[in-house]
Amino acid sequence: MTIQRLFDIDKWKIKTNTFDHQHKRLQESLTSLGNGYMGIRGNFEESYSGDSHQGTYLAGVWFPDKTRVGWWKNGYPDYFGKVINAMNFIGIDVYINDEKVDLYQNKIESFELELNMKQGILRRSVVIRLGDQTIKISSERFLSLAVKQLCAIDYQVECLTGEAKITLVPYLDGNVTNEDANYEEQFWQEIEKGADHHSGYLMTKTIENQFGTPRFTVSARMANITDGFVNESSETAAMYVENRYTYYIKPGTTASLKKYIIVTTSRDFLESELLASGQELLKRVLQQGYEQVKQHHIDRWKERWLKADIEINGDNELQQGIRYNIFQLFSTYYGDDSRLNIGPKGFTGEKYGGAAYWDTEAYAVPMYLSVASPEVTKNLLLYRYNHLEAAKHNAAKLGLKGALYPMVTFVGDECHNEWEITFEEIHRNGAIAYAIYNYVNYTGDRDYMKEYGIDVLVEISRFWADRVHFSKRNGKYMIHGVTGPNEYENNVNNNWYTNLMAVWTIEYTLENLRDLSPEKSSKLAVQEEEITLWKDIIKRMYYPYSEELKIFVQHDTFLDKELKMTDQLNSIDRPLYQNWSWDKILRSNFIKQADVLQGIYLFSDRFTIEEKRRNFEFYEPMTVHESSLSPSVHAVIAAELKKEDKAVELYKRTARLDLDNYNHDTEDGLHITSMTGSWLAIVQGFAGMRVWNEQLSFAPFLPKDWDRYAFKINYRGRLIKISVTEEKTVFELLKGEPLSITVFNESIELNNSYEWRKLDE
Amino acid sequence: MTIQRLFDIDKWKIKTNTFDHQHKRLQESLTSLGNGYMGIRGNFEESYSGDSHQGTYLAGVWFPDKTRVGWWKNGYPDYFGKVINAMNFIGIDVYINDEKVDLYQNKIESFELELNMKQGILRRSVVIRLGDQTIKISSERFLSLAVKQLCAIDYQVECLTGEAKITLVPYLDGNVTNEDANYEEQFWQEIEKGADHHSGYLMTKTIENQFGTPRFTVSARMANITDGFVNESSETAAMYVENRYTYYIKPGTTASLKKYIIVTTSRDFLESELLASGQELLKRVLQQGYEQVKQHHIDRWKERWLKADIEINGDNELQQGIRYNIFQLFSTYYGDDSRLNIGPKGFTGEKYGGAAYWDTEAYAVPMYLSVASPEVTKNLLLYRYNHLEAAKHNAAKLGLKGALYPMVTFVGDECHNEWEITFEEIHRNGAIAYAIYNYVNYTGDRDYMKEYGIDVLVEISRFWADRVHFSKRNGKYMIHGVTGPNEYENNVNNNWYTNLMAVWTIEYTLENLRDLSPEKSSKLAVQEEEITLWKDIIKRMYYPYSEELKIFVQHDTFLDKELKMTDQLNSIDRPLYQNWSWDKILRSNFIKQADVLQGIYLFSDRFTIEEKRRNFEFYEPMTVHESSLSPSVHAVIAAELKKEDKAVELYKRTARLDLDNYNHDTEDGLHITSMTGSWLAIVQGFAGMRVWNEQLSFAPFLPKDWDRYAFKINYRGRLIKISVTEEKTVFELLKGEPLSITVFNESIELNNSYEWRKLDE
Repeated sequence: MTIQRLFDIDKWKIKTNTFDHQHKRLQESLTSLGNGYMGIRGNFEESYSGDSHQGTYLAGVWFPDKTRVGWWKNGYPDYFGKVINAMNFIGIDVYINDEKVDLYQNKIESFELELNMKQGILRRSVVIRLGDQTIKISSERFLSLAVKQLCAIDYQVECLTGEAKITLVPYLDGNVTNEDANYEEQFWQEIEKGADHHSGYLMTKTIENQFGTPRFTVSARMANITDGFVNESSETAAMYVENRYTYYIKPGTTASLKKYIIVTTSRDFLESELLASGQELLKRVLQQGYEQVKQHHIDRWKERWLKADIEINGDNELQQGIRYNIFQLFSTYYGDDSRLNIGPKGFTGEKYGGAAYWDTEAYAVPMYLSVASPEVTKNLLLYRYNHLEAAKHNAAKLGLKGALYPMVTFVGDECHNEWEITFEEIHRNGAIAYAIYNYVNYTGDRDYMKEYGIDVLVEISRFWADRVHFSKRNGKYMIHGVTGPNEYENNVNNNWYTNLMAVWTIEYTLENLRDLSPEKSSKLAVQEEEITLWKDIIKRMYYPYSEELKIFVQHDTFLDKELKMTDQLNSIDRPLYQNWSWDKILRSNFIKQADVLQGIYLFSDRFTIEEKRRNFEFYEPMTVHESSLSPSVHAVIAAELKKEDKAVELYKRTARLDLDNYNHDTEDGLHITSMTGSWLAIVQGFAGMRVWNEQLSFAPFLPKDWDRYAFKINYRGRLIKISVTEEKTVFELLKGEPLSITVFNESIELNNSYEWRKLDE
Repeated sequence: MTIQRLFDIDKWKIKTNTFDHQHKRLQESLTSLGNGYMGIRGNFEESYSGDSHQGTYLAGVWFPDKTRVGWWKNGYPDYFGKVINAMNFIGIDVYINDEKVDLYQNKIESFELELNMKQGILRRSVVIRLGDQTIKISSERFLSLAVKQLCAIDYQVECLTGEAKITLVPYLDGNVTNEDANYEEQFWQEIEKGADHHSGYLMTKTIENQFGTPRFTVSARMANITDGFVNESSETAAMYVENRYTYYIKPGTTASLKKYIIVTTSRDFLESELLASGQELLKRVLQQGYEQVKQHHIDRWKERWLKADIEINGDNELQQGIRYNIFQLFSTYYGDDSRLNIGPKGFTGEKYGGAAYWDTEAYAVPMYLSVASPEVTKNLLLYRYNHLEAAKHNAAKLGLKGALYPMVTFVGDECHNEWEITFEEIHRNGAIAYAIYNYVNYTGDRDYMKEYGIDVLVEISRFWADRVHFSKRNGKYMIHGVTGPNEYENNVNNNWYTNLMAVWTIEYTLENLRDLSPEKSSKLAVQEEEITLWKDIIKRMYYPYSEELKIFVQHDTFLDKELKMTDQLNSIDRPLYQNWSWDKILRSNFIKQADVLQGIYLFSDRFTIEEKRRNFEFYEPMTVHESSLSPSVHAVIAAELKKEDKAVELYKRTARLDLDNYNHDTEDGLHITSMTGSWLAIVQGFAGMRVWNEQLSFAPFLPKDWDRYAFKINYRGRLIKISVTEEKTVFELLKGEPLSITVFNESIELNNSYEWRKLDE
């Protein structure tokens, strides 16, 4: 495992004093900022002619890019919904004595870059030599949590030697494209623009599409607050607006500028109101002034950290890692808008497209349940509820009944276009159902089930009941032609995990058909024959099992493979997906991510410790964890099996996945949806938190090299802090009514604070 | 099964008096001409602004089109080699009183179109009204078999009413693109052009490519022979050259023109010699004159028909069908050039790209062995021999030893880019080996084996030995992750056919390692350990078999499927590939083309009649025959099983596949490589011809509705004519030494002519 670390270790900061052109994209990904409404990669404000990926993304603003495949197969989606690169609004061109600053070409004498995670602020200063001049540029920027539409930049240029003519050109530039556009199309067209000497606006709209999906109009308004200039002007060009200020400075004076940008979109306003609404917001921001809007922003981050921070004492690398993950996750999504979801790269890149994957339900929901209010998770669930009709359409396209939730989507329609995923990785449907269970079990919100959840469950069950087939010669129901969570195998039969999820969904649906309102029952119209079939499927589903090994078998012919362990792999083979042909990967037994173990993780209460141990010890040694979603699940099970070293080893892979660029692809963007993994590993793994049958329980241990860790969880109106050291675990009820919790099977009444001490074993 | 028949039934002609704009592309495909060197779709010479597919193709002239996939997988080829649409050289624009003739817009009063298969000539006449004028246009064209570089067109315009100013503009136009270009690129650039008043030339070259594959330069020279014009001129534009002649005609006079085009390419000449060599050829052609070059061309077709014609008395539809198939197949390939192969659409379309598929070895070789000289087949074999290094490269790309012949190729490198085909449909390697066996067995040319064949066999065996794995728990070698000939299933394990081909190849390789020259043995360097492994694989290969049904099982879990028969399908579901999602197709048991039965067909001597019957009766009823390669193999086995009606039914699907547009896709081009199917069905099916252990045998029957059929075969220096009627089969030795043949297990000495009569059964 080779790591690549650009930034220094620090508990609250991502900072460095070095700058390497070769890693520009990686630096940009890692210093991304977001506020749930929009996000920007860590691009420089000034010009950079080297390899870089300029990226600005607006939540819920997307484009249906015409599908590109080698060979069309029936059932493929017509388009792939893409997060689209929106106009660059941070740009400030700088000229020194009329020569343009280009940080790729100019000699850099010193460099500082710092992302403050506590505050959500990115700061940078750079000293360059240009001609005879030594110039220092400083910038500070943030995307406000208080006014979501706002980006604020404090920008300064200083002469360290001699005097200079400085020109600052803050601009808005809509001439942007997606690097991953299938046919090199430009997705935007200009609607309106204008500028006076201290402000400008640009309104662009996504181009027409042939798929009937909505178009988006985006307006950006900038106000530039500066003084001391000798000349000011403004200019517009195609999809472009600029202000231009000229200053003469000498040592001790600066050319300084505050650039405020308000971005409004047709998601929230009528197109005709966009410019006015932006104007209104901008006016209010300008009245408050920079320091005040900044303070409001910092305060909001403070509140978030108060609820969600995890403290680790004794390992600053991991402390930084977990905070980074929480920071970037919250930058992407904090549940403000049920039309949104958590894209795989958040606002940090374009790769993979789409706004929602099953990652959300499988990995994000469990964490958001604990660190944010229930409404956040409820909004994630409603997102899918609102897509139920589209999910039924997806199933119908394959010739199947019920609902098939998409692998990738914006508005519910499937966007993914590989048959082995699109048509076959149907276990995703189980994750959607499980998230409903998870939410209801954690929050106790039965009304949600009755009003929304049951609709989704019934349609998913209908899908499963149509997707299974009855194999006469075996007298069993089977599910052929699936791809399990382990995407290093495709088109397998009877994937144990998928079969399990199918039957569990049907069982859980049947359980929840009780106590519905007559209106709901009549709307769902579940027929007696359906119920009979469902019960028969529950009774006669086939699950591959090895009597000899006493393990659940990943799928029908898995054990026919040549079985190798990961320690037999050479390091030059890793990661396999970069070094092996797809043919070799598919035929090997190496597992990308938890598959059987994912099922054991989700239904941990159904299996004995011995079953868990046998399956973990069989599968984990052949798992390469090349999905960013893999290590956390394994860490949780390892912790339960008291394999503490293994749990910590796996945790480490999740905690600094991006900061140490483990997967060699962070330059494309951060692995947002797997950032919950490190939280899960600590809370469900090290602290052993579970909620089974609406009972909260813990089984904490402290990793060997740590002194202490602590975190808070929200649970049914309570805020509880858990602090774990070697000798004791302290449970503090910070908010809410007393409740009974379980610690290592011991029942505890939590009123105020409780110190649980390990007995000598 | 709905058919679409544009042309009348005629024994030797494809002709019609109707013209329907809606079926223009289909008409163009069906009236394609080719001479092995080049080919053109049945486009009109004059302008046609409606939907049409202008297509000119030159054998061996191709372009590496950048691969397009949705998601890249390691091992994919960088490019897809495409047959490219080359310059349009047949074009003649026509103006009547300065108004351009456009057969899409103009009112057509009468229309005749006729492809004469005996002569290889396309004739057309059309009467149009334009303004006050009624004008008749007649054209006749051919691609000469005698001078392969020559296309000759005899073109006439006649006034049926009044007088008219006629302008004829014969031209060469390089502004052509491929409809299937992945990124809408133009593959050609202009090198040189020029024109005087009676001739013109245009030289174009394929654009540069990033893959290091050769570029091609093509020169076309036209000479236009005409008189009676009042004005003549010439013109050039980008990639375009024209001559222009103006005539004044009245009823009884014509504006007539003979357009000769010579096409030379850098495949045969240095680029610098192209124009001169074209000039030289053109001079010779002009000296001979139109009638003489046409007669030479017709004579060549006569020779071909003499060797290869199949006569059917009593069914003119099928008579037309079989002749059409032979005609189009020979138009594509007649073995003149070992650098060429038989593309799936020949010169009649662009779809599928590539020059060689396993179709050649599996379906074309058996026919060419019988209807042409052994050199034709030998050239097809040498084509693969010459690609051995590339095939080793293909295997290495997947991390495997030995040679993997490509699914689609021009120069040996794999071009196909679907993992389930590219990486998995490896049975193609078996077809390459089998063709060597087929050739040696048919011709007795053991020298080929020792000099060329064995190299290919050894490397293919090395591939198989590396591609199998040993399954410990079964104590057997297995082959996982393959796609069998039935492409309606992907990524299956232990496809019976593939396992059979693998072991057979290794067995056959071991047999032929004897008696090699020391140089050859040392070059092959087959090691003792290799031989030990090969023998172990032969001994311990796993073949799925059902004890209960006593059938060979298509692959591991095939019998777990819900087994349905094709008669349970609704007609609206057919063809499945157009009406079902890929998911539904993959999970169904419906079979696209012979899979187990393909193995039984190839090794017909190894299986008992009972085994054949059980497997045929199990698999054929679930086979949808949606590959154009499917019915023929089934027809041959059905015939052997005395299922004569079934054999004839299946034959009918092969004989008029394109003429009746069974697969609803002939507009894209003809199914060239499956055209051998109807020949195989008659010769191997109805006549029961086999060559096992170098012994020629027959077991003929006459289809119920036929009066007689007759065909000729070449076999080891003999030309034998076989005529089958109800009461007797006549074998005539037309050429060569006497030989002993077998008819229904009866040995017969064939000296001159032999009448075999059916005994009462």
